Amino acid sequence: MITSDHNPQLKDVRRLHRREARRAAGRFVAEGEDLLDAADAAGWEPALRLRAGVDVTAEALAKVSSLGSGTRALAVYEQRWSAPVGPLCVAVWGVRDPGNVGTVLRGALAFGVASVALGPGCADPYGPKAVRASMGAIFAVPVARVESVAELPGERVALVAREGEPLTGPVPGEATLVVGAERAGLPDDVVGACDRVAHIPIGSESLNAAMAATVAMYELTRIARP
Amino acid sequence: MITSDHNPQLKDVRRLHRREARRAAGRFVAEGEDLLDAADAAGWEPALRLRAGVDVTAEALAKVSSLGSGTRALAVYEQRWSAPVGPLCVAVWGVRDPGNVGTVLRGALAFGVASVALGPGCADPYGPKAVRASMGAIFAVPVARVESVAELPGERVALVAREGEPLTGPVPGEATLVVGAERAGLPDDVVGACDRVAHIPIGSESLNAAMAATVAMYELTRIARP
Repeated sequence: MITSDHNPQLKDVRRLHRREARRAAGRFVAEGEDLLDAADAAGWEPALRLRAGVDVTAEALAKVSSLGSGTRALAVYEQRWSAPVGPLCVAVWGVRDPGNVGTVLRGALAFGVASVALGPGCADPYGPKAVRASMGAIFAVPVARVESVAELPGERVALVAREGEPLTGPVPGEATLVVGAERAGLPDDVVGACDRVAHIPIGSESLNAAMAATVAMYELTRIARP
Repeated sequence: MITSDHNPQLKDVRRLHRREARRAAGRFVAEGEDLLDAADAAGWEPALRLRAGVDVTAEALAKVSSLGSGTRALAVYEQRWSAPVGPLCVAVWGVRDPGNVGTVLRGALAFGVASVALGPGCADPYGPKAVRASMGAIFAVPVARVESVAELPGERVALVAREGEPLTGPVPGEATLVVGAERAGLPDDVVGACDRVAHIPIGSESLNAAMAATVAMYELTRIARP
């Protein structure tokens, strides 16, 4: 059993809290039994699995946890990057908040969206906050990195507050819903590269990126649902 | 200009970060120009307003801020409690996360919900995190405290994952949507006291309370929107 927090495996885990280290290693950490169960259920094999009191002392494990309260179990996995695929893809642009990125993943899983594409300026979906906010959806929904609208499948629908037509589902063929960050919205060139613009029909108020994406996914998958 | 963080007004502000102190004083704090603008726009008169460099030094103000990054302006307001009113009320039960309570308020404003009722076990909507997550909706949406379903207006619809009928809007008359916390869901006696049970038609996955409430509000206000 690992007892020292100078253990090399624990040092590797701690290093993965930083984005650059995750990118370099191509790995990430998930903490807590629920997330580890979600990974197991989705058939992800951990590169390393540490349980408090079994593989490592609770004290040493707590020191590498990203959670204030510590954790009973964590595991390291290889990152997986997919192509942005349809029939329905959701793409987000400039969503810097990892909680929002995780929530979009969670919504994508709930509404049966085929993939989530992350454009420039998004939080790392494999960071600890995004993984946690995804509630395990990170293991079930294909995640892509994209640089331009041209990479996105099907008809590209830019979601812009109070512009274009009211969003109504379902989409008949292949489509990508493109969502921007809360304040900045979508860059003009991104909107310009999309096939059409739509909005969620509400008053003058705004929704954050995760809420807007959730409602839009709900609307676009309307008929497809049982 | 206030320069010392021992100033009694600043001490009062700091005290209001604690729930018991807010309850005792019947007041709360909002931080940041955006929230203060939202309060002004909604006609709320602050009991106290502090601007860095005008009423107080930036250093002294930073010390009473609940934000890690400090703040340029904050204000203290009297809490307002409303009755739970329709035509559409959203009630939440046991939602302990202040961010989720604030997000429900924000969704309520976006979708034109008449009031938000907070049942037992909910986070204080006037706490700093809830106020911030509401993005100013706390100043625009009437908020009620309730102890039982009997206090809620109109037909009471309990939102329960995978139970009852798929939720479809709009609701014809007066109604209350009742939403529980993410893991615990609604207590059995609350569901039993409601008039009917409905679910958001998704697969086996779950949405958190704020997402579920957002989608449900969207669905229930479907036709009412322009």
